[in-house]
Amino acid sequence: MRPSMNRPGEPDQHFALDGLDALFEAKSIAILGASSDPSKIGGRPIRFLKERGYAGGVYPVNPNHAEVQGLRAFASLDAVEGPVDLAIVALPTPGVLPALKSCVQHNVRAAVVFSAGFAEMGADGADLQRQIRELARRSGMRVLGPNCIGVVNSKQGVYASFSAVADYMADRSYRSGVAFVSQSGAVGPHCLTVARTRGLDFQTWVTTGNEADIEFADCLAYMAMDDSVKVIAAYIEGCRNGAKLKAALQLARDRGKPVIVLKTGRSTIGAQAVASHTAALVGADNVYDALFEQYNVCRVDSIEELIDTAYACSAGEYPHGNKIGILTGSGGAGILMADQAAGLGLDVAPLPETAQRKLHDLWPPAGVMNPVDTTAQTSNDPKLFEQFLDVVLNEGNYDTVVVFLTYLGLLQPWTVTMTDALIEAKRRSPGSHIVVSMLAAPEAVRRLADENILVFDDPTAAVAAVHRLGQLSSGFAGQPAIEPVAPSVVPAYDGTTLNEYDAKRLLAQAGVEVGAEAIVRSPDDAAAAAVKVGFPVVLKVASTDIQHKSEVGGVLLDVGTAAVARDGYTKILGRVALAAPDARVDGVIVAPMVTGGVETIIGVQNDPVFGPVVMFGLGGVFVEVLGDVTYRLAPFDERVALELIMGVKGSALLQGARGGPSCDLAALAKMLSQVSHFAAANADRIASIDLNPVLALPDRAVAVDALIIPKA
Amino acid sequence: MRPSMNRPGEPDQHFALDGLDALFEAKSIAILGASSDPSKIGGRPIRFLKERGYAGGVYPVNPNHAEVQGLRAFASLDAVEGPVDLAIVALPTPGVLPALKSCVQHNVRAAVVFSAGFAEMGADGADLQRQIRELARRSGMRVLGPNCIGVVNSKQGVYASFSAVADYMADRSYRSGVAFVSQSGAVGPHCLTVARTRGLDFQTWVTTGNEADIEFADCLAYMAMDDSVKVIAAYIEGCRNGAKLKAALQLARDRGKPVIVLKTGRSTIGAQAVASHTAALVGADNVYDALFEQYNVCRVDSIEELIDTAYACSAGEYPHGNKIGILTGSGGAGILMADQAAGLGLDVAPLPETAQRKLHDLWPPAGVMNPVDTTAQTSNDPKLFEQFLDVVLNEGNYDTVVVFLTYLGLLQPWTVTMTDALIEAKRRSPGSHIVVSMLAAPEAVRRLADENILVFDDPTAAVAAVHRLGQLSSGFAGQPAIEPVAPSVVPAYDGTTLNEYDAKRLLAQAGVEVGAEAIVRSPDDAAAAAVKVGFPVVLKVASTDIQHKSEVGGVLLDVGTAAVARDGYTKILGRVALAAPDARVDGVIVAPMVTGGVETIIGVQNDPVFGPVVMFGLGGVFVEVLGDVTYRLAPFDERVALELIMGVKGSALLQGARGGPSCDLAALAKMLSQVSHFAAANADRIASIDLNPVLALPDRAVAVDALIIPKA
Repeated sequence: MRPSMNRPGEPDQHFALDGLDALFEAKSIAILGASSDPSKIGGRPIRFLKERGYAGGVYPVNPNHAEVQGLRAFASLDAVEGPVDLAIVALPTPGVLPALKSCVQHNVRAAVVFSAGFAEMGADGADLQRQIRELARRSGMRVLGPNCIGVVNSKQGVYASFSAVADYMADRSYRSGVAFVSQSGAVGPHCLTVARTRGLDFQTWVTTGNEADIEFADCLAYMAMDDSVKVIAAYIEGCRNGAKLKAALQLARDRGKPVIVLKTGRSTIGAQAVASHTAALVGADNVYDALFEQYNVCRVDSIEELIDTAYACSAGEYPHGNKIGILTGSGGAGILMADQAAGLGLDVAPLPETAQRKLHDLWPPAGVMNPVDTTAQTSNDPKLFEQFLDVVLNEGNYDTVVVFLTYLGLLQPWTVTMTDALIEAKRRSPGSHIVVSMLAAPEAVRRLADENILVFDDPTAAVAAVHRLGQLSSGFAGQPAIEPVAPSVVPAYDGTTLNEYDAKRLLAQAGVEVGAEAIVRSPDDAAAAAVKVGFPVVLKVASTDIQHKSEVGGVLLDVGTAAVARDGYTKILGRVALAAPDARVDGVIVAPMVTGGVETIIGVQNDPVFGPVVMFGLGGVFVEVLGDVTYRLAPFDERVALELIMGVKGSALLQGARGGPSCDLAALAKMLSQVSHFAAANADRIASIDLNPVLALPDRAVAVDALIIPKA
Repeated sequence: MRPSMNRPGEPDQHFALDGLDALFEAKSIAILGASSDPSKIGGRPIRFLKERGYAGGVYPVNPNHAEVQGLRAFASLDAVEGPVDLAIVALPTPGVLPALKSCVQHNVRAAVVFSAGFAEMGADGADLQRQIRELARRSGMRVLGPNCIGVVNSKQGVYASFSAVADYMADRSYRSGVAFVSQSGAVGPHCLTVARTRGLDFQTWVTTGNEADIEFADCLAYMAMDDSVKVIAAYIEGCRNGAKLKAALQLARDRGKPVIVLKTGRSTIGAQAVASHTAALVGADNVYDALFEQYNVCRVDSIEELIDTAYACSAGEYPHGNKIGILTGSGGAGILMADQAAGLGLDVAPLPETAQRKLHDLWPPAGVMNPVDTTAQTSNDPKLFEQFLDVVLNEGNYDTVVVFLTYLGLLQPWTVTMTDALIEAKRRSPGSHIVVSMLAAPEAVRRLADENILVFDDPTAAVAAVHRLGQLSSGFAGQPAIEPVAPSVVPAYDGTTLNEYDAKRLLAQAGVEVGAEAIVRSPDDAAAAAVKVGFPVVLKVASTDIQHKSEVGGVLLDVGTAAVARDGYTKILGRVALAAPDARVDGVIVAPMVTGGVETIIGVQNDPVFGPVVMFGLGGVFVEVLGDVTYRLAPFDERVALELIMGVKGSALLQGARGGPSCDLAALAKMLSQVSHFAAANADRIASIDLNPVLALPDRAVAVDALIIPKA
């Protein structure tokens, strides 16, 4: 029995592993709607279970047959003797709920519902689906689907799917260690088929369908807990429960399991423009980027990349750094790979000089820097290739060595000699990481896979995979703790609408530097406050009804004397009274006129699924014209905040580019972290926060303006 | 006989087609160094020619054998009766030059030299290669190589290569219409092999080796002229003769042939930093980008993309616009493709409402907007799929329809029913463009190819191919003339070093607006000129020895009165005398103080291979921090200049973003074009030009500073 992460009364807040073992590791399976025709939906799983040698009990249930596909059939679940772990439901829509109720009565622990006709079909279907959900919640019986393709766990021989691709699952699937979780019924089998064409088997494979009960995150968590799973690949379109997904990703991360995700919906979600300035940039899809960044999830943009990366991870070997050696028999392919490696930030470091000399002596026409080019001699003299390979592996100090062998893997005798050479070289250099780009016969690919040597057709794909392995590796190495330590004081926000002055006071309590400013309610007080603050000052109207102060004439810059401040008070209130006669005015803020430094923006948007997301960007054209911003889920510590800062393309500007100042990055990072803690602690009451601008100065960072918008 | 593009006395300025027919369409072939062993370098071409049914004479030359591989052998070329078009030279290095001389004596028209040991092996080899080049130039006999893999033209049965991949060339190669030109001996055969795995055959295929005589551009030009070639794919590392490559690309463009190029060397060339401001951004690799942009060449970054695009072009059908319809049986794959299409700028427009209603009535669960999702019903009801396909093709007004059919092409009966359905639908909708993403058996792919229906395994690759086809199509449609009309007056530059004032006068003659400024040589003249120019003015030292005037105190901004101008003159000269005592000072420039508008930069760098390249960028962070610049080869017209302007990421700033002015883009484009003509006309004497800043104002564009650096 696996541990439950459920908390009483919070069924949706954490993933629920209870009963999932009955789905993925079922010891007995009943098929409701069993068909004698092995090509029918209700017949296929029976065929698969038989052909694939499932060891548990298989109980076809069909009132009209005594035998189904050579197995004894049962008129109903009542007739089945002994416990049933898993029920496969392949019935017309109206029969599904009654069937599930009978499952509950017979203590079936989990059910897979293939049948469609539920939430995807409108209100009536949605109501039926809700009843399935409630039944599952009430009874504890877990339900996968409805409207799903099912689940396969080749390790246990559980083939509870009607997808024809189960035929494609190889005998070796059970030991690949790669699990695949898909929210799409079609993308799942498609990926499995693509993977097979390049020699990668999915060990476990599940599609979640309409997610009446079991959700994507539940399956992800199960895979994270399953010791036989080493790599999790996934396809996701959306998530209704951010906390659960976060918890599942946390579990995978804690156990050092790479998660590779293809998430769709960039374009449609990008269209969901929202009103406020920050919100215009925080689309929900960006929130996924922030989530994936935080949990070291590798997000890919295509099925090819998904399969390539899962395949790369399946070897279970990760480079410890980004030094890449390139060994090639083609100068052209070497340059191509070097270009790409450099473009991805890998270090195409030259061989040490002694090694270069050694190679030159072996074969003077060779290129001996990096890429190391054996020339076409590779195919004429396999011994030379071995010698080169040894030198590059042993003396290059590379974290990964990529070997380009063009189409030699398709031709005899090379396919054998090269495969032998690679395997023996790896054995001679334990701990070395070899990735091969070669068109090769499946047998050669399999032999190399058994030695954890990866093979890619395309040299560009090979280098891209090395890059992603390195990112996953450094992500696991560099981020020990997800949950940051909160500052000692995180003030509570009561959800009222605040004027700028009050918003800043609140943020100041959270540790955000806002400058020593005053709020005044008379011309004389304005003059006195200006003297106290120190000239020049800025006067700004304070009003909960006015978000854009400049637009109503509510700002006076560069006030240099007490007299100007006194007049200014009256002038501002006069202009505001004309432009916004209904606005409640709380007074006038007298603030120091902070100049210099680099303008930045800190924003918070409260995502309905994932909670507060912090955005960072540079001011001016960077945010508004270039959209050059970074995101992270709140809360986070200062180290993560620094990643956010350094992640914007214009970050050089904060470090003295173009003759500007070297800003106090530590202070800026601290502010970002503090804002993130404040937002996280008050997530229930905040819609958004906008600190714009925040001036990054050589010795500090100051929030010059602040706006907190409460949740409606 | 093909036309010659040679001009007397300019052998390297234009590609030379003379004699290339003897290479690509040889009517008789002698093999010098012929081997009886069909696996040896000198034996393989004989085997290929025999096996592939070459119709011309094949003459093995080998003094030690009377017969080679069943053919009569000849002791020397002397013994061969009748003319020899092409000689294959497969001899040890020292024998190559004598053999080529004997070829010349026997009026052999072209030779392919497989042998290595020339320029790639150091000075002695380079000298030998130079002798080959001179022999070729003197005699008119064309030479491919040395150190090359050879040439194959399957249409004529010419297999003059020793690469084992000739075995992979299919019987249908001759009609694919795809030619491949490679500067790399290994990348060429590799690409051919990859292409074969996805059902694409290269009709003609050539590797240029060391290019002693025949260069990459010659082969490209030949393919452009060959009517049987419809698509040119190419791999290039570099080019020594830019004019020739331009002429070849022009020829392909004039004949509407797509050229797809994989060019390597981005990273190494990026390292060639140069001194001046503009130059730091104009790397030679960027010049290739400019070149390819200009000639509508599709530059790709990987072998996969190269093959995908060549394959896409091989159907010979190009979309007329960017409206894409997506028909899928998988909601997930549909979203994935829509995301990518939107990201690439394709128009994922919804179906017209009448068509939507029609589809809804056919199958209520279907998604009917775009993507159109038939749901899994596709595989249950092929008839429904046909109906959907017809509606999308006939009523969607899409330029391309992409159909996702997952792995149905691998399974019976679907592979046949779906292939039939696609073919018949296309026949019912003449002119429609269908691209399919489907894992499919080769036979299905071939059947669809015969109907010009493209098949891609990966949905992302399918959409990317649609995008590239559209780019090629609009490139051909939108750019009728390459050679722009020069302005009526393009002043000559004599190559002397000019101070800012004189540089601006020269540029003003070229039509560049530089503002009404004066050069003065006394304080009183400064005051008088300032009054005439109109306050406020700027004073700047004019000196051919001072490039960075601010650094020596040589600039005085915002001079508001005649008195300040008078004092300023003295002040500037005093500061300059201290900071740069050896500088020759020509006087002081009195210029209007132009403010407002948007800062831009126009630069010219004279590339040693391709001549003057014009760079455009926005000032400030855009160029220096973000490297946000565009390039184009000079000269170009105002329409191209506008593309340059709109091509920078920050271009919105010129159109009133962030409350700024809407700039006079026509004036800016005119200035760019005029600078390009000036640079092109004076290419022999200019090293670089730097107009920085150029202020883009609402009603004009003004070059505020100008620097012309002459060629050393």
